Amino acid sequence: MVDKTRNPTGWGYVEDALGAAERKAIAPMAGALFGGGLPDAQAAPAAEAIALPDSRLRVPDALSGWVSTGHADRLLHARGRSFPDLVELRGDALADVPDAVAEPGNEQELMAVLDWCDSRRYAVIPFGGGSSVVGGVTPEGVGDVAAVVTLSLQKMRAVHAIDARSATVHADAGILGPDLEAAVKHQGLAVRHFPQSYFHSSLGGWVATRGAGHFSTQHAKIEDRVQALRIILPDGRICQTQRLPAGSVGVDPNRLWCGSEGTLGVISQVWLRCVQAPSLRDGCGIAFARFEDALEAARTMLQSGIYPTQLRILDPYEHMVSRMVAGKPAQGALMVLAFESAGAPVGPQMAAAHEIAQQHGGSIQDSAGEESTGDWKNTFFRQPYLRDAMLDHAVVLDTFETAVLWSQVPAAYHGIREAVIKALEAECGGGAVTCRVTHAYPDGCCLYFGFFAAGRRGSLNSQWQAIRDAAAAAVAEYGGTASHHHAMGRTHRGYAREELPEAFIDALHGARARLDPRGIMNPGLLPDA
Amino acid sequence: MVDKTRNPTGWGYVEDALGAAERKAIAPMAGALFGGGLPDAQAAPAAEAIALPDSRLRVPDALSGWVSTGHADRLLHARGRSFPDLVELRGDALADVPDAVAEPGNEQELMAVLDWCDSRRYAVIPFGGGSSVVGGVTPEGVGDVAAVVTLSLQKMRAVHAIDARSATVHADAGILGPDLEAAVKHQGLAVRHFPQSYFHSSLGGWVATRGAGHFSTQHAKIEDRVQALRIILPDGRICQTQRLPAGSVGVDPNRLWCGSEGTLGVISQVWLRCVQAPSLRDGCGIAFARFEDALEAARTMLQSGIYPTQLRILDPYEHMVSRMVAGKPAQGALMVLAFESAGAPVGPQMAAAHEIAQQHGGSIQDSAGEESTGDWKNTFFRQPYLRDAMLDHAVVLDTFETAVLWSQVPAAYHGIREAVIKALEAECGGGAVTCRVTHAYPDGCCLYFGFFAAGRRGSLNSQWQAIRDAAAAAVAEYGGTASHHHAMGRTHRGYAREELPEAFIDALHGARARLDPRGIMNPGLLPDA
Repeated sequence: MVDKTRNPTGWGYVEDALGAAERKAIAPMAGALFGGGLPDAQAAPAAEAIALPDSRLRVPDALSGWVSTGHADRLLHARGRSFPDLVELRGDALADVPDAVAEPGNEQELMAVLDWCDSRRYAVIPFGGGSSVVGGVTPEGVGDVAAVVTLSLQKMRAVHAIDARSATVHADAGILGPDLEAAVKHQGLAVRHFPQSYFHSSLGGWVATRGAGHFSTQHAKIEDRVQALRIILPDGRICQTQRLPAGSVGVDPNRLWCGSEGTLGVISQVWLRCVQAPSLRDGCGIAFARFEDALEAARTMLQSGIYPTQLRILDPYEHMVSRMVAGKPAQGALMVLAFESAGAPVGPQMAAAHEIAQQHGGSIQDSAGEESTGDWKNTFFRQPYLRDAMLDHAVVLDTFETAVLWSQVPAAYHGIREAVIKALEAECGGGAVTCRVTHAYPDGCCLYFGFFAAGRRGSLNSQWQAIRDAAAAAVAEYGGTASHHHAMGRTHRGYAREELPEAFIDALHGARARLDPRGIMNPGLLPDA
Repeated sequence: MVDKTRNPTGWGYVEDALGAAERKAIAPMAGALFGGGLPDAQAAPAAEAIALPDSRLRVPDALSGWVSTGHADRLLHARGRSFPDLVELRGDALADVPDAVAEPGNEQELMAVLDWCDSRRYAVIPFGGGSSVVGGVTPEGVGDVAAVVTLSLQKMRAVHAIDARSATVHADAGILGPDLEAAVKHQGLAVRHFPQSYFHSSLGGWVATRGAGHFSTQHAKIEDRVQALRIILPDGRICQTQRLPAGSVGVDPNRLWCGSEGTLGVISQVWLRCVQAPSLRDGCGIAFARFEDALEAARTMLQSGIYPTQLRILDPYEHMVSRMVAGKPAQGALMVLAFESAGAPVGPQMAAAHEIAQQHGGSIQDSAGEESTGDWKNTFFRQPYLRDAMLDHAVVLDTFETAVLWSQVPAAYHGIREAVIKALEAECGGGAVTCRVTHAYPDGCCLYFGFFAAGRRGSLNSQWQAIRDAAAAAVAEYGGTASHHHAMGRTHRGYAREELPEAFIDALHGARARLDPRGIMNPGLLPDA
């Protein structure tokens, strides 16, 4: 079982943070990226030094075994891990924090917490791994509730059953990525759902946010892999959907809770479709002089019926940065392809993909460095730790992602990139923007952007907000979504108001009125009707 | 454009009904199927001879251009085409019919109808191609509304745009299968969504019922192909979702209307994901001595990552019946495999599938008759016309389908089959049951059953109901859904009450209360909260 120490003021686990030598390399690298010097590193404060408002709650004796008002618990569950979250966690005092943290060990304890909160009108914020980068678990804008209780699912991690014949695992929502993967392995199955938060995000969190993984053969989005759900409502009702491969009896119940982000009850258990552990693999890198050519090759592949297990394309800037870490130069765009299967031949798919790539000017690489080897995963999983170290040097940096139709690519790529560059110049006097395609579909793809600039201590969040607003406006201009897989959260709530039809938001509020009449579930997250 | 004469008392088009010679062969064939003689044929009555209750409506002058209270219109839109529908249409009088039929030619006319109905509290039943086999468009149980208006989308058939780069077509919901296919063809695209009702079912109907097609590469269920929707609400609001390949900004709005069966507004336009027109094809039949072995081979294929464009398995009874039509004998089960693509190699997939089939005792056929050739489609599309001809001879017959997990197969197959045989014996003194797998997934498959027996004129629907109830009970016993792709409708409404969580039905009513406060949209279809 994953058993490391969660970092109260940074990404992931304390044990996995960057070492001293790695930290030393940050400032020179950042300088090379966007020019100029950086201020000396200033580490996040000790958790104990961060002042929190007094808790407004006295925990009833009956719940005291799993509900805490302790400083460490409240701080650890006060925020997700977005850039502004991290900046706020580096202050000496934090507002908008939960009054208590509940960590039930089973559904009975969970229901007791919900009953307590529902009867007293306390807001309940379900908390999986806490890796939200969109303010999904921040107790902001919760309205006129009497208190806030953050409900951690971290002690509910049991694997209930594995149906090997149906390639399905039934587990508690709180189970973390590596534990779920380990549980199915001995049955010859694999989950292979690898979000960047893999090591400390939870199954329930994946579902509640409609997250996406990498290497999830043809089903990167978690909602496509949900076979059934069990949801606990504030009034104690249990809503369990039927396990089915497919169906047509009215609206699909599972889809109401995929992406519900804690607003429609607590997802307590999930039946997830697994895959047979892959036995065949093939991977390669393909160099393109122009990003646009790589995009066109990807479109052709997907529309020809070639569905790689993974298809990524690094734009020239992202490509350069990825090699800079290894101290190597890079030019042009890089496509990384991988196929894997438990029996279906992968070689012919790869050969057909090569042919298409070459028709679009691609040059097949024997080795594309860490991007095309197993190492990419380590690099990928370590990137957010790098963010903490850069933040020590007051770098404003973040990633954001969108999905756009192929008919909007590459105009969207250029337009969004230019809008962010302009915002970086206005806010920070310059900076760098990178982009990669992380997921591709027959009708479009996910563009995943990163930006980096030297910030001003004390103004980091306002600088960040201005840049993100500019990015979101450009994304909307090209018909992109505010998020392909990071969820809505409080960060995208305003942008979502433009993206989601008003009548649909109205309908969600109608559903919520039946499931949660007192409106205690993650209030302030759904856009107003 | 499809322009044939809809049969007012039978399936599809008058022009496509069985000819005299084909009809003559029915009685002997039915006799061979389940023994005994059949009564002489008795054709359906002439449409004009069927008495309807007087319409309760006087159409306002402003709507008279597209709202009719004529007998022919009301009869044609009074029912779908389920077995009990057809039996009722053969009586000399029909209750529960619409008071008027609206056929707006554009959204303005459609909104005028909704406004009229909403202000007067008339029930509105959206009507696509009218091919529902589950009572989706029958004005039964509509409650205390003042009248019923059936809203046909048949004059809204425009193709608005084709986004060839994103392989997407944007069309009015009323467009029929062949017209949609023809529209995208000149752009090198294909829809390849072939429900059995293909020739006279509509795009909007597919979406509203979560239907499934055959030969829809890896996306047989229509909900996976919906990129965006436009919905008109009774109060005139327009709800248009954003065109996206994927997203995570909260709950997916499209999914609330997929399967909504007209209860949450009128789907007026659809953006549908197409495929590139396939250029590569491979198909074959594979004989298995035992159905169970074929099932196991199919499970292994899907779980190995082999996703045929079509995978069907005929059980020995279905196999026999399918050959009987051609006057040929058959033994054992038959698997039919087809792969097609617009570039991805199909040969290696087929070779891998063969290997798995052979490991499970399968024997590859050079030709599997019409089942593995283009002819299967004609046979498939003609089957419901055969039903009309059998009904002339008072045969009780129907199909029903479910989806079950692989861990329930083959127990579900045997259990459901036995339950239906028992019911046929009790109700009809015997009969025949057939089964085929029509769709397969990594976690389960769709079992599609047919039953046939000599019925008693005057009791056909009560016999049918008893058999269907027995089938539904057996389906539920094995964890199957009441329908994989036929939808809920009024036929499955009672079964759905068991299948769908009570809290989810409650949530749907909550959503409906916001979208349709007066409850005029297809009332009586949703299970009560």
